[in-house]
Amino acid sequence: MSDFRQQALNYHAEPVPGKISIELTKSAETAKDLALAYSPGVAEPVREIAANPADAYKYTAKGNLVAVISNGTAILGLGNLGPLASKPVMEGKALLFKRFAGIDSIDIEVKHRTTEDFINTVENIADTFGGINLEDIKAPECFEIEKALIERCDIPVFHDDQHGTAIVTAAGMLNALEVQGKNLHDAQIVCLGAGAAAIACMELLIKCGAQREHIYMLDRKGVIHTRRDDLNEYKELFANNTDKRTLQDVIAEADVFVGVSGPDLITADDLKLMADKPVVFACSNPDPEISPDVAHSARNDLIMATGRSDFPNQVNNVLCFPFIFRGALDVRAKTINDEMKIAAVNAIRSIAKEAVPQEVLQAAGVDSLEFGKDYIIPKPMDPRLLPRVARAVAEAAIASGVARIALPENYMQ
Amino acid sequence: MSDFRQQALNYHAEPVPGKISIELTKSAETAKDLALAYSPGVAEPVREIAANPADAYKYTAKGNLVAVISNGTAILGLGNLGPLASKPVMEGKALLFKRFAGIDSIDIEVKHRTTEDFINTVENIADTFGGINLEDIKAPECFEIEKALIERCDIPVFHDDQHGTAIVTAAGMLNALEVQGKNLHDAQIVCLGAGAAAIACMELLIKCGAQREHIYMLDRKGVIHTRRDDLNEYKELFANNTDKRTLQDVIAEADVFVGVSGPDLITADDLKLMADKPVVFACSNPDPEISPDVAHSARNDLIMATGRSDFPNQVNNVLCFPFIFRGALDVRAKTINDEMKIAAVNAIRSIAKEAVPQEVLQAAGVDSLEFGKDYIIPKPMDPRLLPRVARAVAEAAIASGVARIALPENYMQ
Repeated sequence: MSDFRQQALNYHAEPVPGKISIELTKSAETAKDLALAYSPGVAEPVREIAANPADAYKYTAKGNLVAVISNGTAILGLGNLGPLASKPVMEGKALLFKRFAGIDSIDIEVKHRTTEDFINTVENIADTFGGINLEDIKAPECFEIEKALIERCDIPVFHDDQHGTAIVTAAGMLNALEVQGKNLHDAQIVCLGAGAAAIACMELLIKCGAQREHIYMLDRKGVIHTRRDDLNEYKELFANNTDKRTLQDVIAEADVFVGVSGPDLITADDLKLMADKPVVFACSNPDPEISPDVAHSARNDLIMATGRSDFPNQVNNVLCFPFIFRGALDVRAKTINDEMKIAAVNAIRSIAKEAVPQEVLQAAGVDSLEFGKDYIIPKPMDPRLLPRVARAVAEAAIASGVARIALPENYMQ
Repeated sequence: MSDFRQQALNYHAEPVPGKISIELTKSAETAKDLALAYSPGVAEPVREIAANPADAYKYTAKGNLVAVISNGTAILGLGNLGPLASKPVMEGKALLFKRFAGIDSIDIEVKHRTTEDFINTVENIADTFGGINLEDIKAPECFEIEKALIERCDIPVFHDDQHGTAIVTAAGMLNALEVQGKNLHDAQIVCLGAGAAAIACMELLIKCGAQREHIYMLDRKGVIHTRRDDLNEYKELFANNTDKRTLQDVIAEADVFVGVSGPDLITADDLKLMADKPVVFACSNPDPEISPDVAHSARNDLIMATGRSDFPNQVNNVLCFPFIFRGALDVRAKTINDEMKIAAVNAIRSIAKEAVPQEVLQAAGVDSLEFGKDYIIPKPMDPRLLPRVARAVAEAAIASGVARIALPENYMQ
């Protein structure tokens, strides 16, 4: 067994199994404590909530509690291993919510017969939580699931594999294009991959200014075009009226490549076909569509981002999801809408353009980070992300009319 | 607003809403920590669990995690106020699990259309947990729900309002009869109330030696007898072939009265009809079927228990549920069966007969507690309950073949 593999197993097994626990936020030592916490005192908040449901935010943990929910059909890069096997990932996500944004988060693994059975189960337990983060659910079911739950629940429902990835990708992409002197409206874009993340990334890039007809999306069968008859309704939206059929056909003269597919699916020769000053996001994890070393050897005018922490420009969902939920929870938003997502994009973008705090440099083990080709996106442990992204998201929720309460005056200061 | 009422609301609202939070059991400070906890390290326990589902107990929090699940249809004495309003109670139960037995516990509030919809929802999320505590679900649906979930889940499912109440009642009752020089087999028993707790109490007393034909159960319409045609299948089991119709008819010469009904439903005159040396469990909460003061004035040969902490002999579920789950979880029991329930009864009984530790006396504010009329059952904060009840339950699970693992040699020592 490899050393890292053994360390990962030990980390999960010792000294107690798993990564999270439930703890008490109130004293429960004396008989008086217990009389307040349970019978007879607990009847008081029960009565208040029965009379005014919003008081659940006042008297229970609901308002800071996010469920990380999966059916285990698309676990990391490992595929459909079922709900139980997904539990370490979901607990890991809960750990990240707490670590980065102080959000109490519990994993829920759901087995189900039909997609509707899954939706119904989550809808039935939704009152428990302040928000729901869907995770590792395969496409195309994930689209139907998220859409139905957003309609049926009065709390934020967010499929991070789609929108978290899209927000961080859009933030990095807009900055990269700015560094290259290009803009999203004119960019020719190739998207290798047509799953949940790919489709969400392209939809958000369009909302940020990209033109749908400039996007070529490819699945396992090649370019998605209007004469194909094997497309689901989500891919159909990206069907291009074109004679181009292969990756090489479309990557020629492209400004942007986004890979959300698998390892080693593009070559140095492919990159050489791209337009001047291209932007290459090779986000397959843990092994990108092309290694940064190979890409930079192929041409020296590109900006490259990957999912890897050991190269510059890491596209990491943790730059977004803890903070978008933080902002949404703090104004009791009914949903996470496009305005809030775009606010998150802009907040993440702006941080990368500012002077970097010493502690971030230390954590990254570098002397300096300057906005440019090798620094288009903040580092995952940047402490500015929490206040800046959360506030931007909360303000967007208020401005777009989905917030239930205002922010306190000194919020995140 | 009364002082206690305000204190209860403040306790729930300040300094943070609610009573529980999620915390990390592993370090999540460094980039290395996060690589072990999430991507890429988390893939290792995922693969192990996919290959061997039992490894979920080794690498996740499942094995020490109990869901407290309600639909809010029978909240305390308050009735059907719905799932959201039940949340403070369920969080309170989670608090008690942690406080008394170190069990991580999260509340889940479930809305649903049909009883089957509720059952299906809980079944679908059950993989997440090591055990399920059902709470505040109204009769008769609670019987069908518990039965179906026990059949469909491979983890313990336990409706505490039924079985926790029954176990503590049986422990106290057996001790009280012993003090009175009587035995359960010969006892004439009146049970006022025919809900979930009442039926579970009587069923367990029968398993402990009571005779079904010696039991008279009463609902709002009086004695449950064989000529009634308005009985559900659960009450039907207690239909007595008798001409007696009223409480006064059946309480005459009874040895035992168990009240699981409502406040002030029996009188001093009723008690005077009972046999010599009767046992009166007036468990309606917070106000018993008859006040202890009135009961003791009516006759001085009775033993009295209530749900109140301010009188001797408090029947309190917290004497059982944290510890029966502790024992069941620690041997990964597939279920909580009758053998385990009776083991809990006997463990609780035996503690009441032994010398009381100084700390228990101090907490109770008394100089001494001696097994007898005013001390038939341990105090809720007795530290002997955890090791003794948990071990007895775990050993019963092993002996009855429902345990998946053995106990460690030094368990609870």
